[in-house]
Amino acid sequence: MLSRSVEVQRDAITLVNELNEGVSEYMRAARYYDNKDIRIEEIEAPEAGEGQVLIDVAWCGICGTDLHEYLDGPIFIPPHGHPHPISGEDAPITIGHEMSGTVAALGEGVTDLEVGQKVVVEPYIIDPQYSTKAEDNYHLTPNMNFIGLGGGGGGLGEKIAVDRRWVHPVDIPLDEAALIEPLAVGHHAYVRSGAKAGDVALIGGAGPIGLLLAAVLKAEGLKVIIFELSKLRRDKATETGVADHALDPNEVDVAEKVRELTDGKGADVGFECSSVDVVLNTILEAVKPTAVVVNVSIWGHQPKVDMHTLVLKEIDLRGTIGYCGDHPATIKLVEEGKIDLKPFITGKIGLEGLIDEGFDTLINRNETAVKILVSPSGKGLE
Amino acid sequence: MLSRSVEVQRDAITLVNELNEGVSEYMRAARYYDNKDIRIEEIEAPEAGEGQVLIDVAWCGICGTDLHEYLDGPIFIPPHGHPHPISGEDAPITIGHEMSGTVAALGEGVTDLEVGQKVVVEPYIIDPQYSTKAEDNYHLTPNMNFIGLGGGGGGLGEKIAVDRRWVHPVDIPLDEAALIEPLAVGHHAYVRSGAKAGDVALIGGAGPIGLLLAAVLKAEGLKVIIFELSKLRRDKATETGVADHALDPNEVDVAEKVRELTDGKGADVGFECSSVDVVLNTILEAVKPTAVVVNVSIWGHQPKVDMHTLVLKEIDLRGTIGYCGDHPATIKLVEEGKIDLKPFITGKIGLEGLIDEGFDTLINRNETAVKILVSPSGKGLE
Repeated sequence: MLSRSVEVQRDAITLVNELNEGVSEYMRAARYYDNKDIRIEEIEAPEAGEGQVLIDVAWCGICGTDLHEYLDGPIFIPPHGHPHPISGEDAPITIGHEMSGTVAALGEGVTDLEVGQKVVVEPYIIDPQYSTKAEDNYHLTPNMNFIGLGGGGGGLGEKIAVDRRWVHPVDIPLDEAALIEPLAVGHHAYVRSGAKAGDVALIGGAGPIGLLLAAVLKAEGLKVIIFELSKLRRDKATETGVADHALDPNEVDVAEKVRELTDGKGADVGFECSSVDVVLNTILEAVKPTAVVVNVSIWGHQPKVDMHTLVLKEIDLRGTIGYCGDHPATIKLVEEGKIDLKPFITGKIGLEGLIDEGFDTLINRNETAVKILVSPSGKGLE
Repeated sequence: MLSRSVEVQRDAITLVNELNEGVSEYMRAARYYDNKDIRIEEIEAPEAGEGQVLIDVAWCGICGTDLHEYLDGPIFIPPHGHPHPISGEDAPITIGHEMSGTVAALGEGVTDLEVGQKVVVEPYIIDPQYSTKAEDNYHLTPNMNFIGLGGGGGGLGEKIAVDRRWVHPVDIPLDEAALIEPLAVGHHAYVRSGAKAGDVALIGGAGPIGLLLAAVLKAEGLKVIIFELSKLRRDKATETGVADHALDPNEVDVAEKVRELTDGKGADVGFECSSVDVVLNTILEAVKPTAVVVNVSIWGHQPKVDMHTLVLKEIDLRGTIGYCGDHPATIKLVEEGKIDLKPFITGKIGLEGLIDEGFDTLINRNETAVKILVSPSGKGLE
């Protein structure tokens, strides 16, 4: 991707083709330069290369990871002068990885999608030497990164060109579709847990991921208990119906209450979604012997873990990252009406409001906000 | 169990029976009163109650748990005045749980063993309201404790009466048989790991449990890499053939070396046997993505765990405690000659030497000692 300041060299035929197809040569995008330095700029618009799909981005959600990059990064983003080994790109980089849109053009060899079709992106950057089959755990291959963090354009630009492999058709409203990516994170955590319908799940933390994970678990037939300090978040969990019980750890002994709610047995499965030591250890205390506890959160520090309880109860503590083959099943849950994503959309803004209305709200008033969506072109706000 | 100072009431017939059978009324035993207070005393000898087996103890190993009870306890041992909810016993309590011996008498209803037969004890105290089938995870039931810690007599007494359920016949020398209990700990850790022949295992720590676990893994066809600060322990690991490689973490970068030994992949499975934070985190670093890491050690503190690595590699960190249905398979490995336990017996002492020769050696010179066996009757030393 070239900025306007860089000399652009193209042959005349390409230019004519673009004009004929009505593709605008430049577009607006949010570009990450460094922490606390994200700029809205005009950059050259991408085109659909061979095997690629060009997408008009409708909506892109702001993720906790984007906030971390903004406040403490670069983390996933390759710093300027240190290009990513797969994408070859370094900062400045277009950000945004929770995106939905419509197909604008199909690259050579892509025949199974149609222009105008609604799609979401599974935003992976995977070394081409590895298989991208789900059974090969493509998401755990060396140097894995995410489109919108490690390069490859981003959902906070008006257009993006993505390899066909990572494009999934959807038949749901495009604003809700922008939540498929974080919902897939919840789906993958559910798959990692091995939980089944009828199980009782305990979730620590009712932030966006905790809530969307709860939505997946309810849709899959589990009973969900969530514990969370913020009353507003607890209310969101119960009002949306994704949690059967929302406990305030300042008011009740969570482990004791969970045992009470499970005939003394303890939760069948636990999910850590807060990156707080005591939350993880409370989950270890509150699950039954032989339970699986899935760690969904990203830790900026090494927590002190109650290994003694993990040992005496023979708990399985499992890591989960991203998703791997989860998008079709995740999309189906929403298409079939088993999950209603609308209540989790708490704001819609344009690209110019990204920092002031988006990031600042999530950083300073994040109890009321769940998911804020950005319309890079502004068309969604008309 | 009654001490000599307690009034003993028996009817004459029992007394005559005992005299006829040559059972001595009193025996010597090591009894735990409090930390740093273990006394060798004469106590009333047990008898085989209904469904029980009376065993002449041949050998009893000193376990790390015994040392913890001695130095920092009582931990598992119910303190004086606080009887254990299942055994009803409190300190003083006869200790020792790694025992072998011969059947001295069979209680009413026990028909499938013979007097004189060699046996080992699976030393569990389980609430009788729960199933003791392996598939029901009897070792994870509420208030589980161990014979020789929570009551029920101990292997550091000349005789012990044990429910038939916990007695396993063996066809191996009785000194080696005393190591079946810690070997079963290793076997259970192996089962928990889901590892299979051909896998590469990384073990952190070459103490008694690390070494015996390595022996199980080698017998099951795995390749074993062990890392350990002590040269003497590393030598023991390689000289006995239970480890293919013994790494010195002061000399090599363990994770880098493991990758080198596994074509860049990382170990398939890891085992923490040291209760040291950096050892656990080194294992997380050195295993492949999706690996299982089994925590075998008992932690006296909450370690700082590298959760970020656990998350990004989707590692399963599993607790393991004791054994559950592992004794038959463990015994078979030794009976079939797949494991040679002799090199791990580094001392044989009498009951009178328990503290000075046994505990003190293990506490102060534990690099050379692996397993010290005690002959409570002294007959094994003749």
